[in-house]
Amino acid sequence: MNKQKIITISREFGSAGRTIGKSVAERLGVPCYDEEILQKVASESGFHPDFLKDQGEYYVSRPFFSSAVAGKNANGYSLQDEVWMVQSRIIREIGERESCVIVGRCADYLLRDIADCLKVFIHADMDFRAKRIVEVYGEREDKPLKRLADKDKRRKKFYKFYTGMEWGDAKNYDVALDSGRLGIDTCVDLIVDLYERKQ
Amino acid sequence: MNKQKIITISREFGSAGRTIGKSVAERLGVPCYDEEILQKVASESGFHPDFLKDQGEYYVSRPFFSSAVAGKNANGYSLQDEVWMVQSRIIREIGERESCVIVGRCADYLLRDIADCLKVFIHADMDFRAKRIVEVYGEREDKPLKRLADKDKRRKKFYKFYTGMEWGDAKNYDVALDSGRLGIDTCVDLIVDLYERKQ
Repeated sequence: MNKQKIITISREFGSAGRTIGKSVAERLGVPCYDEEILQKVASESGFHPDFLKDQGEYYVSRPFFSSAVAGKNANGYSLQDEVWMVQSRIIREIGERESCVIVGRCADYLLRDIADCLKVFIHADMDFRAKRIVEVYGEREDKPLKRLADKDKRRKKFYKFYTGMEWGDAKNYDVALDSGRLGIDTCVDLIVDLYERKQ
Repeated sequence: MNKQKIITISREFGSAGRTIGKSVAERLGVPCYDEEILQKVASESGFHPDFLKDQGEYYVSRPFFSSAVAGKNANGYSLQDEVWMVQSRIIREIGERESCVIVGRCADYLLRDIADCLKVFIHADMDFRAKRIVEVYGEREDKPLKRLADKDKRRKKFYKFYTGMEWGDAKNYDVALDSGRLGIDTCVDLIVDLYERKQ
Protein backbone atom coordinates (compact mmCIF):
# COMPACT_ATOMS: atom_id res chain seq x y z
CA MET A 1 0.00 0.00 0.00
CA ASN A 2 1.47 3.32 -1.08
CA LYS A 3 1.17 6.68 0.58
CA GLN A 4 -0.86 8.43 -2.12
CA LYS A 5 -4.59 8.85 -1.62
CA ILE A 6 -6.92 8.18 -4.50
CA ILE A 7 -10.62 8.70 -5.05
CA THR A 8 -12.26 6.45 -7.62
CA ILE A 9 -15.65 7.54 -8.89
CA SER A 10 -17.91 5.01 -10.55
CA ARG A 11 -21.09 6.58 -11.83
CA GLU A 12 -24.31 6.01 -13.67
CA PHE A 13 -24.51 7.80 -17.00
CA GLY A 14 -25.99 11.27 -16.46
CA SER A 15 -25.59 11.23 -12.67
CA ALA A 16 -23.03 14.08 -12.75
CA GLY A 17 -20.28 11.76 -11.52
CA ARG A 18 -17.70 13.36 -13.80
CA THR A 19 -18.67 16.89 -12.74
CA ILE A 20 -18.48 15.81 -9.09
CA GLY A 21 -15.08 14.20 -9.67
CA LYS A 22 -13.70 17.35 -11.29
CA SER A 23 -14.98 19.60 -8.51
CA VAL A 24 -13.59 17.31 -5.80
CA ALA A 25 -10.18 17.26 -7.52
CA GLU A 26 -10.16 21.05 -7.82
CA ARG A 27 -11.05 21.50 -4.17
CA LEU A 28 -8.31 19.06 -3.12
CA GLY A 29 -5.70 20.37 -5.56
CA VAL A 30 -5.08 16.98 -7.19
CA PRO A 31 -5.48 15.93 -10.84
CA CYS A 32 -8.71 14.38 -12.11
CA TYR A 33 -8.26 11.60 -14.66
CA ASP A 34 -11.11 10.92 -17.04
CA GLU A 35 -10.69 11.81 -20.72
CA GLU A 36 -6.93 12.02 -20.05
CA ILE A 37 -6.82 8.23 -19.63
CA LEU A 38 -8.51 7.82 -22.98
CA GLN A 39 -5.88 10.07 -24.62
CA LYS A 40 -3.06 8.05 -23.05
CA VAL A 41 -4.60 4.76 -24.18
CA ALA A 42 -4.99 6.24 -27.67
CA SER A 43 -1.36 7.32 -27.90
CA GLU A 44 -0.03 3.98 -26.57
CA SER A 45 -2.36 1.66 -28.47
CA GLY A 46 -2.75 3.50 -31.74
CA PHE A 47 -6.55 3.29 -31.54
CA HIS A 48 -8.60 6.40 -32.26
CA PRO A 49 -10.04 8.15 -29.16
CA ASP A 50 -13.57 7.92 -30.58
CA PHE A 51 -13.21 4.16 -30.85
CA LEU A 52 -11.80 3.94 -27.32
CA LYS A 53 -14.57 6.00 -25.77
CA ASP A 54 -16.92 3.11 -26.22
CA GLN A 55 -14.48 0.21 -25.85
CA GLY A 56 -13.01 1.42 -22.56
CA GLU A 57 -16.22 1.36 -20.53
CA TYR A 58 -19.05 -0.23 -22.46
CA TYR A 59 -19.42 -3.87 -23.20
CA VAL A 60 -19.25 -4.63 -26.92
CA SER A 61 -21.06 -7.81 -27.83
CA ARG A 62 -18.86 -10.64 -29.02
CA PRO A 63 -20.00 -12.97 -31.79
CA PHE A 64 -20.09 -16.56 -30.64
CA PHE A 65 -18.40 -18.35 -33.55
CA SER A 66 -14.89 -18.50 -35.04
CA SER A 67 -12.08 -16.30 -33.79
CA ALA A 68 -11.95 -14.63 -37.21
CA VAL A 69 -15.58 -13.61 -36.95
CA ALA A 70 -15.18 -12.67 -33.30
CA GLY A 71 -12.30 -10.37 -34.16
CA LYS A 72 -9.85 -12.08 -31.86
CA ASN A 73 -6.12 -11.96 -32.38
CA ALA A 74 -3.73 -14.93 -32.31
CA ASN A 75 -3.62 -14.87 -28.49
CA GLY A 76 -7.38 -15.17 -28.29
CA TYR A 77 -7.93 -11.59 -27.16
CA SER A 78 -10.62 -9.36 -28.65
CA LEU A 79 -9.93 -5.73 -29.47
CA GLN A 80 -11.79 -4.79 -26.31
CA ASP A 81 -9.56 -7.09 -24.24
CA GLU A 82 -6.50 -5.33 -25.68
CA VAL A 83 -7.93 -1.92 -24.85
CA TRP A 84 -8.69 -3.23 -21.35
CA MET A 85 -5.09 -4.36 -20.83
CA VAL A 86 -3.51 -1.08 -21.97
CA GLN A 87 -6.03 0.96 -19.98
CA SER A 88 -5.52 -1.19 -16.85
CA ARG A 89 -1.76 -0.71 -16.99
CA ILE A 90 -2.12 3.06 -17.40
CA ILE A 91 -4.53 3.31 -14.47
CA ARG A 92 -2.23 1.21 -12.26
CA GLU A 93 0.73 3.44 -13.19
CA ILE A 94 -1.26 6.54 -12.19
CA GLY A 95 -2.33 4.83 -8.95
CA GLU A 96 1.24 3.99 -8.04
CA ARG A 97 2.44 7.50 -8.77
CA GLU A 98 0.17 10.16 -7.35
CA SER A 99 -2.84 11.23 -5.33
CA CYS A 100 -5.73 11.94 -7.70
CA VAL A 101 -9.35 11.41 -8.66
CA ILE A 102 -10.08 8.78 -11.32
CA VAL A 103 -13.51 8.69 -12.97
CA GLY A 104 -14.90 5.39 -14.24
CA ARG A 105 -13.00 2.61 -16.02
CA CYS A 106 -13.15 0.12 -13.12
CA ALA A 107 -10.38 2.02 -11.31
CA ASP A 108 -11.83 0.93 -7.94
CA TYR A 109 -11.19 -2.67 -8.94
CA LEU A 110 -7.81 -2.08 -10.62
CA LEU A 111 -6.33 -0.18 -7.67
CA ARG A 112 -7.80 -2.31 -4.88
CA ASP A 113 -4.41 -3.62 -3.76
CA ILE A 114 -1.99 -0.84 -4.61
CA ALA A 115 -3.39 2.36 -3.15
CA ASP A 116 -5.49 3.78 -0.35
CA CYS A 117 -8.63 4.37 -2.38
CA LEU A 118 -11.85 6.03 -1.35
CA LYS A 119 -14.30 4.16 -3.56
CA VAL A 120 -17.31 6.25 -4.53
CA PHE A 121 -20.42 5.39 -6.55
CA ILE A 122 -22.71 8.15 -7.85
CA HIS A 123 -26.23 7.38 -9.01
CA ALA A 124 -29.55 9.19 -9.52
CA ASP A 125 -33.05 8.38 -10.69
CA MET A 126 -33.97 8.25 -14.37
CA ASP A 127 -35.75 11.64 -14.42
CA PHE A 128 -32.73 13.49 -13.03
CA ARG A 129 -30.37 11.75 -15.43
CA ALA A 130 -32.60 12.11 -18.49
CA LYS A 131 -32.85 15.85 -17.91
CA ARG A 132 -29.12 16.11 -17.36
CA ILE A 133 -27.97 14.21 -20.45
CA VAL A 134 -30.10 16.44 -22.65
CA GLU A 135 -28.60 19.54 -20.98
CA VAL A 136 -25.02 18.25 -21.18
CA TYR A 137 -24.94 16.21 -24.38
CA GLY A 138 -27.92 17.66 -26.27
CA GLU A 139 -30.75 15.84 -28.05
CA ARG A 140 -30.00 12.65 -29.97
CA GLU A 141 -32.00 10.43 -32.21
CA ASP A 142 -32.69 7.99 -29.37
CA LYS A 143 -34.89 9.28 -26.55
CA PRO A 144 -33.08 9.98 -23.23
CA LEU A 145 -34.63 7.05 -21.34
CA LYS A 146 -33.58 4.63 -24.07
CA ARG A 147 -30.04 6.07 -24.09
CA LEU A 148 -29.81 5.70 -20.31
CA ALA A 149 -31.12 2.14 -20.27
CA ASP A 150 -28.66 1.14 -23.00
CA LYS A 151 -25.64 2.82 -21.34
CA ASP A 152 -26.50 1.39 -17.90
CA LYS A 153 -26.84 -2.09 -19.29
CA ARG A 154 -23.54 -2.00 -21.19
CA ARG A 155 -21.54 -0.41 -18.35
CA LYS A 156 -22.92 -2.98 -15.93
CA LYS A 157 -21.97 -5.80 -18.28
CA PHE A 158 -18.50 -4.39 -18.91
CA TYR A 159 -17.85 -4.10 -15.16
CA LYS A 160 -19.11 -7.61 -14.50
CA PHE A 161 -17.11 -9.09 -17.39
CA TYR A 162 -13.76 -7.59 -16.38
CA THR A 163 -14.08 -7.49 -12.57
CA GLY A 164 -16.53 -10.29 -11.74
CA MET A 165 -18.39 -7.88 -9.43
CA GLU A 166 -21.83 -6.27 -9.55
CA TRP A 167 -21.77 -2.65 -10.69
CA GLY A 168 -23.90 -0.49 -8.38
CA ASP A 169 -24.00 -3.00 -5.52
CA ALA A 170 -23.50 -0.85 -2.40
CA LYS A 171 -21.03 -3.27 -0.88
CA ASN A 172 -18.41 -2.63 -3.57
CA TYR A 173 -18.03 1.02 -2.54
CA ASP A 174 -17.03 2.93 0.59
CA VAL A 175 -19.76 5.42 -0.15
CA ALA A 176 -22.63 5.52 -2.65
CA LEU A 177 -24.56 8.76 -3.15
CA ASP A 178 -27.75 9.76 -4.93
CA SER A 179 -26.71 13.02 -6.62
CA GLY A 180 -30.29 13.80 -7.63
CA ARG A 181 -31.64 13.59 -4.08
CA LEU A 182 -28.64 15.04 -2.23
CA GLY A 183 -27.56 17.62 -4.81
CA ILE A 184 -24.24 17.86 -6.63
CA ASP A 185 -22.67 20.37 -4.20
CA THR A 186 -23.51 18.21 -1.19
CA CYS A 187 -21.90 15.19 -2.86
CA VAL A 188 -18.73 17.20 -3.50
CA ASP A 189 -18.58 18.49 0.10
CA LEU A 190 -19.10 15.03 1.49
CA ILE A 191 -16.42 13.35 -0.63
CA VAL A 192 -13.90 16.11 0.16
CA ASP A 193 -14.71 15.68 3.87
CA LEU A 194 -14.17 11.90 3.71
CA TYR A 195 -10.90 12.30 1.80
CA GLU A 196 -9.56 14.80 4.32
CA ARG A 197 -10.39 12.46 7.21
CA LYS A 198 -8.18 9.73 5.73
CA GLN A 199 -4.81 9.38 7.47
CA MET B 1 -45.24 15.16 2.15
CA ASN B 2 -45.17 16.18 5.80
CA LYS B 3 -42.79 18.56 7.50
CA GLN B 4 -41.07 16.04 9.78
CA LYS B 5 -37.66 14.75 8.77
CA ILE B 6 -36.91 11.08 9.08
CA ILE B 7 -33.78 9.00 8.72
CA THR B 8 -34.28 5.35 7.81
CA ILE B 9 -31.33 3.06 8.37
CA SER B 10 -31.21 -0.26 6.58
CA ARG B 11 -28.19 -2.29 7.58
CA GLU B 12 -26.36 -5.54 7.17
CA PHE B 13 -26.29 -7.66 10.30
CA GLY B 14 -23.20 -6.75 12.35
CA SER B 15 -22.46 -3.54 10.43
CA ALA B 16 -23.17 -1.34 13.49
CA GLY B 17 -26.22 0.18 11.77
CA ARG B 18 -28.21 0.17 15.00
CA THR B 19 -25.37 1.78 16.98
CA ILE B 20 -24.99 4.41 14.25
CA GLY B 21 -28.76 5.06 14.25
CA LYS B 22 -28.82 5.54 18.02
CA SER B 23 -25.84 7.92 17.96
CA VAL B 24 -27.32 9.96 15.11
CA ALA B 25 -30.64 10.26 16.98
CA GLU B 26 -28.89 11.34 20.17
CA ARG B 27 -26.87 13.97 18.32
CA LEU B 28 -30.02 15.32 16.63
CA GLY B 29 -32.23 15.10 19.71
CA VAL B 30 -34.87 12.92 18.05
CA PRO B 31 -36.11 9.44 19.02
CA CYS B 32 -34.60 6.29 17.53
CA TYR B 33 -37.07 3.51 16.80
CA ASP B 34 -35.76 -0.02 16.71
CA GLU B 35 -36.73 -2.45 19.48
CA GLU B 36 -39.52 0.01 20.38
CA ILE B 37 -41.35 -0.94 17.18
CA LEU B 38 -41.12 -4.57 18.11
CA GLN B 39 -42.66 -3.81 21.53
CA LYS B 40 -45.52 -1.89 19.92
CA VAL B 41 -46.18 -4.69 17.44
CA ALA B 42 -46.15 -7.15 20.34
CA SER B 43 -48.67 -5.20 22.38
CA GLU B 44 -51.00 -4.64 19.42
CA SER B 45 -50.78 -8.10 17.90
CA GLY B 46 -50.49 -10.27 20.99
CA PHE B 47 -47.40 -12.04 19.60
CA HIS B 48 -44.41 -12.49 21.87
CA PRO B 49 -41.47 -10.11 21.20
CA ASP B 50 -39.10 -13.06 20.74
CA PHE B 51 -41.31 -14.42 17.99
CA LEU B 52 -41.57 -10.98 16.35
CA LYS B 53 -37.84 -10.38 16.38
CA ASP B 54 -37.45 -12.93 13.63
CA GLN B 55 -40.78 -12.45 11.84
CA GLY B 56 -40.45 -8.69 11.46
CA GLU B 57 -37.24 -8.67 9.42
CA TYR B 58 -36.26 -12.16 8.36
CA TYR B 59 -37.97 -14.21 5.74
CA VAL B 60 -39.54 -17.37 7.13
CA SER B 61 -39.88 -20.08 4.53
CA ARG B 62 -43.43 -20.97 3.56
CA PRO B 63 -44.43 -24.55 2.87
CA PHE B 64 -45.76 -24.98 -0.65
CA PHE B 65 -48.90 -27.05 -0.03
CA SER B 66 -52.29 -26.55 1.64
CA SER B 67 -53.13 -23.40 3.58
CA ALA B 68 -53.39 -25.46 6.77
CA VAL B 69 -49.82 -26.70 6.34
CA ALA B 70 -48.64 -23.26 5.26
CA GLY B 71 -50.13 -21.72 8.38
CA LYS B 72 -52.33 -19.28 6.52
CA ASN B 73 -55.51 -17.86 7.98
CA ALA B 74 -58.93 -17.68 6.31
CA ASN B 75 -57.87 -14.54 4.37
CA GLY B 76 -54.86 -16.31 2.89
CA TYR B 77 -52.32 -14.45 5.03
CA SER B 78 -49.46 -16.17 6.81
CA LEU B 79 -48.48 -15.21 10.35
CA GLN B 80 -45.59 -13.27 8.87
CA ASP B 81 -47.95 -11.33 6.60
CA GLU B 82 -50.03 -10.37 9.63
CA VAL B 83 -46.93 -9.21 11.50
CA TRP B 84 -45.94 -7.23 8.40
CA MET B 85 -49.30 -5.47 8.26
CA VAL B 86 -49.32 -4.45 11.93
CA GLN B 87 -45.66 -3.39 11.77
CA SER B 88 -46.24 -1.38 8.57
CA ARG B 89 -49.14 0.51 10.10
CA ILE B 90 -47.11 1.33 13.23
CA ILE B 91 -44.15 2.59 11.17
CA ARG B 92 -46.43 4.74 9.00
CA GLU B 93 -48.04 6.23 12.13
CA ILE B 94 -44.60 7.13 13.49
CA GLY B 95 -43.61 8.58 10.11
CA GLU B 96 -46.70 10.78 9.98
CA ARG B 97 -46.17 12.02 13.52
CA GLU B 98 -42.58 12.98 14.22
CA SER B 99 -39.00 13.49 13.13
CA CYS B 100 -36.97 10.44 14.11
CA VAL B 101 -34.53 7.69 13.15
CA ILE B 102 -36.00 4.29 12.25
CA VAL B 103 -33.70 1.27 12.06
CA GLY B 104 -34.55 -1.60 9.70
CA ARG B 105 -37.99 -3.08 8.98
CA CYS B 106 -38.25 -1.69 5.42
CA ALA B 107 -39.07 1.78 6.78
CA ASP B 108 -37.44 3.37 3.71
CA TYR B 109 -40.02 1.62 1.55
CA LEU B 110 -42.99 2.16 3.89
CA LEU B 111 -42.41 5.90 4.27
CA ARG B 112 -41.45 6.64 0.67
CA ASP B 113 -44.54 8.76 0.01
CA ILE B 114 -45.42 10.25 3.36
CA ALA B 115 -42.28 11.84 4.75
CA ASP B 116 -39.05 13.53 3.78
CA CYS B 117 -36.75 10.57 4.42
CA LEU B 118 -33.00 10.40 4.27
CA LYS B 119 -32.56 6.77 3.24
CA VAL B 120 -29.33 5.27 4.55
CA PHE B 121 -27.78 1.83 4.02
CA ILE B 122 -24.93 0.64 6.26
CA HIS B 123 -22.74 -2.28 5.24
CA ALA B 124 -19.30 -3.69 5.99
CA ASP B 125 -17.17 -6.61 4.95
CA MET B 126 -17.51 -10.05 6.52
CA ASP B 127 -14.41 -9.76 8.73
CA PHE B 128 -15.58 -6.53 10.35
CA ARG B 129 -19.06 -7.90 10.92
CA ALA B 130 -17.95 -11.30 12.15
CA LYS B 131 -15.73 -9.66 14.77
CA ARG B 132 -18.50 -7.30 15.77
CA ILE B 133 -21.28 -9.86 16.23
CA VAL B 134 -19.07 -11.89 18.54
CA GLU B 135 -18.31 -8.73 20.57
CA VAL B 136 -21.93 -7.58 20.70
CA TYR B 137 -23.92 -10.81 20.79
CA GLY B 138 -21.32 -13.28 22.06
CA GLU B 139 -20.38 -16.70 20.73
CA ARG B 140 -23.12 -18.99 19.41
CA GLU B 141 -23.22 -22.55 18.25
CA ASP B 142 -23.04 -21.47 14.60
CA LYS B 143 -19.79 -19.86 13.50
CA PRO B 144 -19.97 -16.06 12.84
CA LEU B 145 -19.58 -16.36 9.07
CA LYS B 146 -22.42 -18.86 8.87
CA ARG B 147 -24.62 -16.65 11.06
CA LEU B 148 -23.90 -13.64 8.84
CA ALA B 149 -24.55 -15.50 5.60
CA ASP B 150 -27.85 -16.83 6.94
CA LYS B 151 -29.03 -13.45 8.28
CA ASP B 152 -28.03 -11.62 5.08
CA LYS B 153 -29.88 -14.10 2.93
CA ARG B 154 -33.08 -13.99 4.97
CA ARG B 155 -33.13 -10.17 5.32
CA LYS B 156 -32.57 -9.81 1.58
CA LYS B 157 -35.40 -12.23 0.86
CA PHE B 158 -37.73 -10.52 3.35
CA TYR B 159 -37.05 -7.11 1.76
CA LYS B 160 -37.55 -8.43 -1.73
CA PHE B 161 -40.76 -10.27 -0.79
CA TYR B 162 -42.49 -7.30 0.82
CA THR B 163 -41.07 -4.39 -1.21
CA GLY B 164 -40.19 -5.92 -4.59
CA MET B 165 -36.81 -4.15 -4.43
CA GLU B 166 -33.22 -5.36 -4.09
CA TRP B 167 -31.81 -4.96 -0.59
CA GLY B 168 -28.35 -3.41 -0.70
CA ASP B 169 -28.67 -2.05 -4.24
CA ALA B 170 -27.12 1.44 -4.03
CA LYS B 171 -29.89 3.01 -6.05
CA ASN B 172 -32.53 2.36 -3.36
CA TYR B 173 -30.74 4.67 -0.89
CA ASP B 174 -29.72 8.32 -0.74
CA VAL B 175 -26.46 7.27 0.85
CA ALA B 176 -24.79 3.89 1.42
CA LEU B 177 -21.76 3.69 3.71
CA ASP B 178 -19.16 1.06 4.53
CA SER B 179 -18.91 1.37 8.32
CA GLY B 180 -15.88 -0.93 8.44
CA ARG B 181 -13.84 1.17 6.02
CA LEU B 182 -15.05 4.63 7.05
CA GLY B 183 -15.42 4.00 10.78
CA ILE B 184 -18.55 4.25 12.91
CA ASP B 185 -17.90 7.83 14.07
CA THR B 186 -17.40 9.08 10.52
CA CYS B 187 -20.69 7.48 9.45
CA VAL B 188 -22.48 9.22 12.32
CA ASP B 189 -20.94 12.63 11.48
CA LEU B 190 -21.80 12.26 7.84
CA ILE B 191 -25.46 11.30 8.40
CA VAL B 192 -25.92 14.14 10.91
CA ASP B 193 -24.40 16.54 8.36
CA LEU B 194 -26.75 15.36 5.60
CA TYR B 195 -29.78 15.57 7.88
CA GLU B 196 -28.93 19.11 8.92
CA ARG B 197 -28.56 20.19 5.29
CA LYS B 198 -32.14 19.15 4.53
CA GLN B 199 -34.57 22.10 4.32
